[in-house]
This record gives sequence, structure tokens and C-alpha cells, in this order.
Amino acid sequence: MADYVYGPGRTHLFVPGPVNIPDQVIRAMNRNNEDYRSPAVPALTKTLLEDIKQIFKTTTGTPFLFPTTGTGAWESALTNTLSPGDRIVSFLIGQFSLLWIDQQQRLNFNVDVVESDWGQGADLAVLDYKLRTDTSHTIKAICIVHNETATGVTNDLSAVRKILDKNRHPALLLVDGVSSICALDFRMDEWGVDVALTGSQKALSLPTGLGIVCASPKALEASKTAKSVRVFFDWKDYLKFYKMGTYWPYTPSIQLLYGLRAGLDLIFEEGLENIIKRHNRLGTATRLAVEAWGLKNCTQKEEWFSDTVTAVVVPPYIDSSEIVKHAWKRYNLSLGLGLNKVAGKVFRIGHLGNLNELQLMGCLSGVEMVLKDIGYPVKLGSGVAAAAAYLSNSTPLIPLARTDQLQ
Amino acid sequence: MADYVYGPGRTHLFVPGPVNIPDQVIRAMNRNNEDYRSPAVPALTKTLLEDIKQIFKTTTGTPFLFPTTGTGAWESALTNTLSPGDRIVSFLIGQFSLLWIDQQQRLNFNVDVVESDWGQGADLAVLDYKLRTDTSHTIKAICIVHNETATGVTNDLSAVRKILDKNRHPALLLVDGVSSICALDFRMDEWGVDVALTGSQKALSLPTGLGIVCASPKALEASKTAKSVRVFFDWKDYLKFYKMGTYWPYTPSIQLLYGLRAGLDLIFEEGLENIIKRHNRLGTATRLAVEAWGLKNCTQKEEWFSDTVTAVVVPPYIDSSEIVKHAWKRYNLSLGLGLNKVAGKVFRIGHLGNLNELQLMGCLSGVEMVLKDIGYPVKLGSGVAAAAAYLSNSTPLIPLARTDQLQ
Amino acid sequence: MADYVYGPGRTHLFVPGPVNIPDQVIRAMNRNNEDYRSPAVPALTKTLLEDIKQIFKTTTGTPFLFPTTGTGAWESALTNTLSPGDRIVSFLIGQFSLLWIDQQQRLNFNVDVVESDWGQGADLAVLDYKLRTDTSHTIKAICIVHNETATGVTNDLSAVRKILDKNRHPALLLVDGVSSICALDFRMDEWGVDVALTGSQKALSLPTGLGIVCASPKALEASKTAKSVRVFFDWKDYLKFYKMGTYWPYTPSIQLLYGLRAGLDLIFEEGLENIIKRHNRLGTATRLAVEAWGLKNCTQKEEWFSDTVTAVVVPPYIDSSEIVKHAWKRYNLSLGLGLNKVAGKVFRIGHLGNLNELQLMGCLSGVEMVLKDIGYPVKLGSGVAAAAAYLSNSTPLIPLARTDQLQ
Amino acid sequence: MADYVYGPGRTHLFVPGPVNIPDQVIRAMNRNNEDYRSPAVPALTKTLLEDIKQIFKTTTGTPFLFPTTGTGAWESALTNTLSPGDRIVSFLIGQFSLLWIDQQQRLNFNVDVVESDWGQGADLAVLDYKLRTDTSHTIKAICIVHNETATGVTNDLSAVRKILDKNRHPALLLVDGVSSICALDFRMDEWGVDVALTGSQKALSLPTGLGIVCASPKALEASKTAKSVRVFFDWKDYLKFYKMGTYWPYTPSIQLLYGLRAGLDLIFEEGLENIIKRHNRLGTATRLAVEAWGLKNCTQKEEWFSDTVTAVVVPPYIDSSEIVKHAWKRYNLSLGLGLNKVAGKVFRIGHLGNLNELQLMGCLSGVEMVLKDIGYPVKLGSGVAAAAAYLSNSTPLIPLARTDQLQ
Repeated sequence: MADYVYGPGRTHLFVPGPVNIPDQVIRAMNRNNEDYRSPAVPALTKTLLEDIKQIFKTTTGTPFLFPTTGTGAWESALTNTLSPGDRIVSFLIGQFSLLWIDQQQRLNFNVDVVESDWGQGADLAVLDYKLRTDTSHTIKAICIVHNETATGVTNDLSAVRKILDKNRHPALLLVDGVSSICALDFRMDEWGVDVALTGSQKALSLPTGLGIVCASPKALEASKTAKSVRVFFDWKDYLKFYKMGTYWPYTPSIQLLYGLRAGLDLIFEEGLENIIKRHNRLGTATRLAVEAWGLKNCTQKEEWFSDTVTAVVVPPYIDSSEIVKHAWKRYNLSLGLGLNKVAGKVFRIGHLGNLNELQLMGCLSGVEMVLKDIGYPVKLGSGVAAAAAYLSNSTPLIPLARTDQLQ
Repeated sequence: MADYVYGPGRTHLFVPGPVNIPDQVIRAMNRNNEDYRSPAVPALTKTLLEDIKQIFKTTTGTPFLFPTTGTGAWESALTNTLSPGDRIVSFLIGQFSLLWIDQQQRLNFNVDVVESDWGQGADLAVLDYKLRTDTSHTIKAICIVHNETATGVTNDLSAVRKILDKNRHPALLLVDGVSSICALDFRMDEWGVDVALTGSQKALSLPTGLGIVCASPKALEASKTAKSVRVFFDWKDYLKFYKMGTYWPYTPSIQLLYGLRAGLDLIFEEGLENIIKRHNRLGTATRLAVEAWGLKNCTQKEEWFSDTVTAVVVPPYIDSSEIVKHAWKRYNLSLGLGLNKVAGKVFRIGHLGNLNELQLMGCLSGVEMVLKDIGYPVKLGSGVAAAAAYLSNSTPLIPLARTDQLQ
Repeated sequence: MADYVYGPGRTHLFVPGPVNIPDQVIRAMNRNNEDYRSPAVPALTKTLLEDIKQIFKTTTGTPFLFPTTGTGAWESALTNTLSPGDRIVSFLIGQFSLLWIDQQQRLNFNVDVVESDWGQGADLAVLDYKLRTDTSHTIKAICIVHNETATGVTNDLSAVRKILDKNRHPALLLVDGVSSICALDFRMDEWGVDVALTGSQKALSLPTGLGIVCASPKALEASKTAKSVRVFFDWKDYLKFYKMGTYWPYTPSIQLLYGLRAGLDLIFEEGLENIIKRHNRLGTATRLAVEAWGLKNCTQKEEWFSDTVTAVVVPPYIDSSEIVKHAWKRYNLSLGLGLNKVAGKVFRIGHLGNLNELQLMGCLSGVEMVLKDIGYPVKLGSGVAAAAAYLSNSTPLIPLARTDQLQ
Repeated sequence: MADYVYGPGRTHLFVPGPVNIPDQVIRAMNRNNEDYRSPAVPALTKTLLEDIKQIFKTTTGTPFLFPTTGTGAWESALTNTLSPGDRIVSFLIGQFSLLWIDQQQRLNFNVDVVESDWGQGADLAVLDYKLRTDTSHTIKAICIVHNETATGVTNDLSAVRKILDKNRHPALLLVDGVSSICALDFRMDEWGVDVALTGSQKALSLPTGLGIVCASPKALEASKTAKSVRVFFDWKDYLKFYKMGTYWPYTPSIQLLYGLRAGLDLIFEEGLENIIKRHNRLGTATRLAVEAWGLKNCTQKEEWFSDTVTAVVVPPYIDSSEIVKHAWKRYNLSLGLGLNKVAGKVFRIGHLGNLNELQLMGCLSGVEMVLKDIGYPVKLGSGVAAAAAYLSNSTPLIPLARTDQLQ
């Protein structure tokens, strides 16, 4: 049972996914397989499908727990709602939106790409123009990444909805919420999102393996006529088994189901709103540290600041991939690389999922040491101090409810 | 962390998948996430891709570890090698071959279905005829399930290869090895299999979540021109990342990678040939018990007997689903239901994966009690005695090598 | 992380301790250390101390969770209540009562040993005589093993109490309940037991590491004047920390505390009375199998039959240790050796703890195969059939309460 | 499976024991019980007894793995080597030496207490005087705590040995190495230590449950005539089972044996000398932080500075227990309380066991925030900066040997 790397103590995992798994979830998954056709697994599944809707803030949506990754969830969202040749407006603002667009093109949609500089949000003025001028409703869907993980940019989805409404445009709104849902404010019903999706290894803090897709009634309706070829990712098979009460058209991961159950229990115990606030605290603290180090945030405007990932721009004389490599080899710290257009130029700090203040402080302190080691004239302690000044006033007490009840 | 059913002691899991996970694998998977872009995960992945080939008995094949299930592995095999409209010969002999054929049809192939009675193997005479008369090579692929899990029928793949060779037909040979590979004799290279696939939760004895697909050089070549739409399941993306040495086009499950490593270590320690022999012992013992109970094997001829699953035919006055239900509720024993055409008529005993003799005896003893409880005039002890008489002469000693080395 | 033996599938653990741990408990223990001086650990401890009393059937007793084994629990029971030179009446009926007597002698008590043949229970007539004639109350304590694990003999504790009462004798009643408490009927308060003790690895189905001692008010009173030297095992230190609400005079095992919590939750869910009934079912089934094999129970009268362990006498031409060795090497089955006087003459089947019917059937079937392999003319299936005939009418259904609540 | 406290993210465990358990050890312990009389457990035990000697730096010592805590290990060391009434010289320098002395007195030894101020080391001048004047060798043993966990004072054991040798005094040297062995430089053979002991939950980074005692040949010889009453802690029973090759006089914890195996494997992989250096780095960094905060180390001279625990003196207007309470409730950070004489006056940072630089930085950053919250005029970032300045030059790279071998 070799482990393929060794350093004393805990690894500090600060990539923007996969993220740290709570011990309670690791424990819940520590189990043998079970027969998924027994009465127990459908009973468990039923609670999961019901409860996961709270994470999406939907009461009318229908969730699907695909045994896949975010990439598969993308494919499921697209192929169930659209037909080959359909016109899509899609925003290119970083590596992950780029990959989704690549998928859209390979699935033979007619992709109308709206590009922004990496570090900027989706260009909603262009969207407004396109919708306004699309009087014949050739645009079948808007595809947008809520939080671009490569640049740390959060798009304003409520604004997208307003533009759609203003133009009375019936296009479907498909949202990649992979690095946002369960960490950032996300409101499927209120914002009229038609398909929202995430992956288990992001803010839900589970292992990789569940691509979670939630479809609005309008999306379900669209799926009845969508002509894209699909089998594994087809919602229809799931809906058939939902009706039968057995839930699974093929074998689910028993471990992930129990893990999701434990994860949801933790989420509801902390409270989704508290979780969103915690991400805001950790994101703000990180940005204050970056500022104190004299470095720039890749995100160009405050309105786009992401509370789940911060992409830090390094000076031209430093290769950001050296920072990532050095952090791993010397401090057992995993940071995110700069990708594609920003490769070598940024490194990324993921601050999402089941994470607390002192874990982040350990990371920020590590980044300071790495910056110093690599030759950047950082003042040691500066970023940590800036973050601490902010956090020491804003961190809530551990709730003692259960403990107190016992006393 | 509620468990959704409770009975004292261990659950006896005897469905033909998902199967029992060895403790060593459960332990190996009991871990936090890791950055899959660190140097450690690619190093681990490299060993997995190399070693998994031994399970397929191939030196020339290229394996892919998709984060999916067997259904996804099917889709990957088909879409990477074929184009819409391509003619496929496909054998319908039970529920799982039926589902694969359904997928083939929905993926817009021209499926030439060769049907047998459920309980019989693939009709190879018809295959011979079709190939012989297909002088213009309109048949692009033969799709065959090595072991039909619904009926306990194992097809003779070497015979399929011989028929292809005899007719000098270039059709690809695509094999579903979901309930065979790593348990039954399977020889990818020797039998000229072009795509073979399995799922992690079957004979590999892992949780669900890996769809393992292995492609021959001929299949890889075919993938360059295959026009089926695919993104998530596309081999091309994997091959690109293989070349870069980072291996993963999207996020893998860290836990399943370490679990697969531990599982392969166990497999190599026991020896693949010993594992195949063990499955033969357990399969034979089960069939002897069934015979002693005076019940029929759904499999109609000995040449098709499966060493991984036995479908037992019940008398007409018994509903086999009552047997399955009763086994679960009274004896904490999971058996397989009869599916589709044989629903109510057969129940299934899965005897694959990391399993030993006394586990099987517990199951057989449980089946006897269930049969008695449900009103079938079984002689208690009869099946167990028949199995024991066979096993007590054939069970090998636990190898003590490691222990002895320590003394 | 080498495992020091390897055979495919599960090990069948049927020694009379340590016993199989439920998966729920293994999961609960799968955790990091914690500060035992935080508010959380005392809150947890408080629930454990309260709840463990139900297992002893006491409301007035004071429990102590020593980080030790049963041997240490013995020492704690003796040294806290007695002074060197004190006269004890102690029953020698097998290896474990022998070891306790050895300890009593080494601790400088004046041990009045009442010996029976191995296979018989405590000679209560002698006890009656001794108490009746001890008008000056020189006897300070009666020490008795409730269930002698070496011979499978259960003593009648209520009869002991009656004899004490009849003779109005104030001697303390110290009971080793190591292989009885939480499996056999045990009533601390009703039977006037002054110190009762058990170990975590027995019927509680935990790992070894907790020696659980429960003291009556009379025993606590005695501890104030007992002159035996003790520090680690001293109740006084515990009582001091109980008062302070921090509970632990030295570091407890965090993992065992959480494990005990999970174990108690399971016990209360099944119900202590149901657990006792289950042990009676499994014990009866085992005895029926032994009878069907034509072998003798080491326990000489039905009134002493133990529902937690059965010692099986083998014919003189067989060495019982060969049976144990062979079971382990060929069938991955752990049976108990014959000890001391009955070494080579008996082997033992432990049927206690978190265990169910089909697990036992696997064991019984394995014993049959071993007997056959070793040359005993057993009829294969005979013992299993006898056990099955009894169990198939008496095994209760898995309660579905929780599952049903969810539906 | 309730957890008795909840806060998001990892708990930061910085008490000086129990300490953080490496994931590899948690995994190794995640298992069912086993029969300890099978061939496998003795084979495993043999490797443990052999390998543990390296941790003590002894080739001639005999180790015992008692299922107990450090308090039990103390008792084993004393009762096996001494007789009631024997004169012992024992050093009182803090709470743990005080508790040991209390035990010595309760075990009826004639304890000659040499007291120092809390914060100072053992007064070796007094020892020298006592030994010099003890020409009739009434002193049978010197008892000394290597590292006093309450004050963060490390005593100079080689100096003790020199004083014994200089005075040609035959007294036994008994050493509590609970918070030193496997973290600080400790040399049993070279320093002529007769009994050394530690607990599993300290630098070995396991759960509580093993009291590890190592006896020199001279100590073993003394045990033959020592008249202290002992049974559970008696070395004689162990030695008897060592000879038989079955090793255990009573049931060991299977989980702790596998855990110790995994722990030793990790220790040897990092290298004991590297581990000692790592503790020196972490200790030095902590002391630099304390200095930067303007606070005093409870340890009064540099020669006594402990690399495993730092006791920090707070200003008179602050109650140190408020710091500990606040750290836990607001930052999920466990610090050590001040004990007894220094209660309210010091808090303690444990920096021992499987721990790395960034974990410590998270802790130091947390302490800064707590100090600020509690009203101490700390400069945020100051301690972290001082520690980082030191560590960024001294932290070694993660060895990639295994990974590289795979590439």
C-alpha cells in the first residue's frame, strides 16, 4: 500500500479542487459495497435527491447524480437540452470556459463565443446585444461558467437573468457551477437557471466521482425534443428509474452516496448561508494577503472577485510554475498552476470547501516563504498579518449546541 | 451518519456486482483528496496503466481508466471505434446484452441482432454465416458480452476469433468483460479482442467508479476515423495527456487510484491464474449445491456455465423475487433478482471477486434456509454438503510466505 | 503497510475473543487524536459512563473505563476492594479462573480455591458450606468467573447471591464477566454483584484496550479502607476527576471512546434483550451441530451451557490443535485452542459479539470440512443441517424502522 | 455516530499529546480484530519488538508493549525493579514529575525528592552530593523525567550518567521519556539508562494505548529480586511468552500493533536523526515566535529548552486558561493548559510528533490572533515572520525517492 510521496505531517491542499474532505465524510465512505437494489440504497438515494436541491436553492428542479466528473456533467447538460446545430452563446473568460466551449463545438453546436480578457468577467453587454437582435430566437441556450476557476472570476448570474428577461428571450440558461455551488451565493430558481451543475470534489468536499446536474422544468421539457445523441448521460433513463423508486439505471458508487449523505449533514449543520459567509471571509483574507505582498490579483475588478479561488499574478521575472513546484517539494503545499494563457504568470490559491481560518493561515504563511525562497522581495509575515487582522474580528465561535445538550 | 438498514453482523453480499471489497483496498481508499497535478499522482497512474494490462492479458493494448461505470465504458468502446450507421453484429442472450444493444441502437448504429434463448450462449453459427456472406465487409464490429450476468452464460470468445479469422473478416471485436475480466479466463491479445472493458465494482473488487477500457492498436487506428460524437469518453484526450505524462484530461478519483493500486497488488500476490481457479472452484461448488437442491441452472449447457454467477431456476409455484426479498430481510443475504424475461423465474448467486470458500458456504446455507422458509421442499444441508465434498479436497492452503520470511 | 498473512476473502474470526468489530464501530474509530481536555471529550465520556451502566444492568454502580485489558480489570477489582492477607473464596473451573486465582495469589490474598473438574461449573455446595461455617466473616470476597471461556461453562450467579443472602454473609461478590456481559443475561443490581468487569474486545465487539469495571456502592465503600497497593488501577483518582467533570486522570484512547459510543448505539438499537436472545440462538445452533457431528460438548451439564463459546471435545486419536491449525491455514477460519488441561482435547468455537446466523453457518461448515480433512468420519452437511433446522424458524427479520421512516 | 463538537475544517491539535496521527497509521489501524494466537500476530510482534529498540537506541534492552498509558508504564518501571521501602532520588520540576513522585510514594518507596523551581531543570548538583555521600548505596534508583511536559524543560541525561559514573554508584537510572523518545536525542545504551519508557500517543504519533517500556540487562536482573507486588505490569509473564514465541500473556490491541508497524515504517523512512532535527527546527521556530511576541518562555535557561513543547508565560493581567479556551472555541486550535503551580500563568504549544512547518505556522498564526482577541498587544504577523525567517532557510525538500523510482 505504497504512498507515492512522503513528507512528515499533513499535506496542505490548496488547489481549487479536488479539495479537503472532512473526516466525517472519509469515515462515512470507509465501507464495503452494498447491493444497490436492496431496499436500503433507494431509501438513502431518496433523501439525497431531496436534500441536494437545497444546495442549488431550487424547489422545482430535478437533480441527477451522475457517476462522472464535471466534464461529464457538462456533456449531460448540453446533450439533454440541445440538438446538433443549435446556436449557443458561450463566454470565454479562462481555461475552464474554454474547455466547455471546446466540448460544445465537438458536440456539433453552433457556438457563438463571447470572449473577454482572462481576468475579466463575461461581457454581458455583448450578451444583451445578441439577445436583443435575436428576434427570431435562434439562440437556444446561454452557457456560462459561474466561477472561472482559472482566473478567479465570478460572473453575475442575476444580471444574466435580467438581460434574458428584459429581452424576453426564451433561451435556456446553462450554468457551470463547479467551483461555485455550495460555496458562493447561487440561486437556481430565483435566477431562472435551467441547468446547473457541479462536481463532488469541489465545494461539496467529497472525492471526485459525482457529476451533479439539476434541471429546471423547462430544461426537462426541452430534453423531450433535444436530438443530441446520448445514452450514459441521458436524463430519460434516470427519470424512468425515479418513477419506479429504484432510482439507478446503472450501478452507483455506494461509498459516494454515503459520503454525500454525511457531507450534506455537515453542510446543513453549519448552514449554507454560514458556509457562503465563511468562503467570503477566507476569500477576503486571501486577497488582503496578496495585496500586502505587493502582488496583483488576476481578477481585474472587485465585482468579479472570487471567494473560492484567487489567481495571483507574479512579476515578469518569476515563473509561477516554479512557485507551485517549490511549494510542493519544500512545504508540502499544493497550489494551483497558471493554465494556458496565464501559464507561468499566475499561481492559484484555492480556498473552497471544508476549510477553516488557521488552515488558510498555514497556506498563506507557506506562500510567503515560497515567495521569499524564489527571490521575490516579500516581507515575511505581511500577508499573514493582513489576513489575521481581518479574520480575528470576523471568525465565528464553534457552535457548542450538541456538546451543551449533553451536559 | 445513519446507516439505512440494520442487522447484527456482516451483510452477505452475493449479488453479481457490486462485490465485496477486500479490507486492504478499503484501507487504501481511506484518505483525503490530493492534487492530481502533483508529481505523485502521475507516477501512481503510470504504474496502474502498466499493470492493468496484465489483467487483460495484453501487451499491445492501451488502457483507459474512465471515471464512469460499465455503461459508460460500453459507450466509450462504441463511439471511439464506429461511425453512425455502421453495421454491428450483436448477440442478445440476456438483460445486459439487451441493454448494450439498446445503447448501440440509440447511438445510431445499424445493429444486426442475433438472439438466443435466455440461458443459451451466443449463436456462433449465425455469426459464421453472416461473416461468410458479408463479402463486402459491411459489418464493422462484432459486439459480444463475454459473460451474461443475467443468465450466468459464458460465451466462447476464442471460437468467435476463429470464426472471424476463418472468414478473414476485418470487423472489430468488442467485448463486454464486465463480469468476466479478472475472474474468468480472458486473453485480449491471443483472442484478438479489439476493445475489452470492465467495471471496477466487479471482479476487481473495488467500489463502482472506474470504467476500464482497453483498446488494441487496430481499435486505436479505427478511433482516428470514427465519426461518432464523443467528448467525455474520447480516447484522444487521454492519449494527449498520456503523451504529456500528466495522464488525466479531467479530475480522477484519487481514492479509486489508490484502491486500484492496492487491488492490483493483491491480485498479483494471489496470482491471476490462481484467481481464475478460485472462481472455478466457487462456481463448481455452487452448481453442485443447486443440483443437490433439485433445482435447475438457467444456463442450458455445461459449455456455457459461468464461474462468476449462477442463475437458479425456481419451480413455477415460487416467485424468485420473494426468495431475494426474504434472504435480505431475514438473513442479511443479498442475492440477485431475475431480470426481464426471467423475472420471478430465477434468482442469482454472484460468486465473483474477493471471496472465499466459507463465505460461499454461509451463502449456500442461507439459500437453503430461504428455500425452506419459502416452501420449497429442500433437504437442509444437502447443497452445503455437496459443495463441501468438492471444496474440502480442492481448497489451497493460505500461502505463508511473508509470515515465514519474518520468522 | 504489510499484512502479515494473506488469503482471498474475509477471515472467519470465531475465537471467543477478540471478536468481530461492526463496520459502524470501525468507522467511528477511524480518526485522529483529540485533546482530551477540550469540552468535547468530557461531554462524550459522560454519556458513555451513563450508558454503559445499562449493559451491566445497574443504576447504582459506578463504572470505570480503564485503558487496559481484562487482566488489568481483574487487578483493579481486587486491589481496590481488598487488603493483603484477606481471605477470598475463588472457583477454579478452567484456564481463565486459574489465571485469575494466580493473580489473586500474587497480589498476596489468602485464596481459598474451590476446584471443579474442567467442564463443570462452580461448586456452590462448597461455597454454601464455607459461608455457613464462616461465622466470624473471615471471607472478604467471593471471586467467580461468570462464563469460563476455556470450557464454555456459565455459572449461576443468582444462585451465588442466594447462598450469600441465605447465610447473611457480607462478603463482596466480584464477578469476571469478560465473556458474558452484553451477551448473556447479567444483572448486577438484582444479583448484588459488587464488582463486575469485562473487556472491550469481547461481547462489546470493540478492539482490545478498555477494561471496564463497575463497582457497587458497597465496593466503593470498601475501597476507602482497602490496603492493597494500587496507583494506575486506583478508583480514587478516577472519582476525583469525575467530580471535577474532566473524567480522566490520565490520557484515554480517543478512538476507543468514539468506538464505544458507536458500539453502544448499535447495542441499544438492537436491544440488549434481543442481543441476549441472539446469543442463545447462535449457541443453541452450535450445540445442535456438535451433536449432529457425534462430538461431545466439554460442558458437562446443560445448566452450564454457554451461549458465547462452545468447547468441543475431539476423539482421543485426534489432536485438537491440528484442527485449529488446519482451519486457519486452509479455510481462513480462526478457532480457539484447547488450553492447559484440555489442550489437544478440545477446540473452541466462539459465537459472541456482533455476529449473525450466516456467519455462524460459514464457520460450522468450515468445521465440518476440517473434521473431514483431519480424518474424523463426519457426515458433511450434518451439523449445518441441524443448525439450519433450528435457525430457520427462529431468526428475526431485519428491523426496517429507519428505512421505512425515510420512505 | 455523533461527533461531539463541530467546526468546519481540520482541528489544529497542538497539545503536547496526544498528537496528530499520520494518515498512513490511521489507515493501518482501520481493521477488524484478529486472533492473536494465529501465526500472523506473533510474526508481526516479533518485528515490532526488534524495531522499537532502534527508537530507544538500544541493542541490549528488552522492550515491553503494555496495553496501558504512560502512567502504567511508570508503574511497570518501578514495580519490576524496586522493593517497597527502597530509597529513590526523584526530581520534582513540574506537574508530570510531581505525578510520578506521587506514584512512587503511593507504591511505598522512600522517595528523596529534589525540587527545582518550575521552569528549571533537575538539580544535578544535589544529585552529585547525594550520590557522593551515599557510600553505603542506600539509593536504589534515580528517577528522572527527560522532558517535563508541563514546563518545557529537557534534562541532560548524559550529565546524570556522568555523575553516577563519577561516583561509581550502582543505582538504577529510570527515565520517563514520554515526551522525548522519538523526538529528542535519546540514547539508552550510551547513557546507561536502565528503564526507559514512553507512550504511543506522544512522539510515536499513535493513539493512546501502548505504554512502551524498555529494560536494560541490569534492570532485568533487578526484576528477579524486586519485591514490589505486580501482576498486570509484571515483566516476568512477558518474558515467559517471549520465550514461547507467542509474545502476549494477555490480549493485545491488534489495531495498535498494525498502527505501530506503520508508524515505525514511517519513522525509518524519514530517519530518526531527521525526525530529531525536525523537532529542533519546529521548537526553535516556536521559541523565535514567542520572543517576537514579547512573551517569556517558562523554561529559564536555553540549556533546558524543549524541542517538543514550549510553555509560554503570559502577563499577569491575562489568565492563560482563557487563551486555551478561546483558541479552541474560535479557531479550532487545541493548546495545552498551564498545570498546577503554573495554572493560569502559562499556556503550552506542543510541537511533537508527525507535524510539519506549515501546520506549525497555522498554529502560531492562531496564537497571535488569540493573543490579540484576548487583549495582549501583539503585533500580528510578528511571530509568524520570525518563525518563517528561520524555517524558510532550513526546511528540507520532500524526498522523492519512491516517486522517482517509479518514473
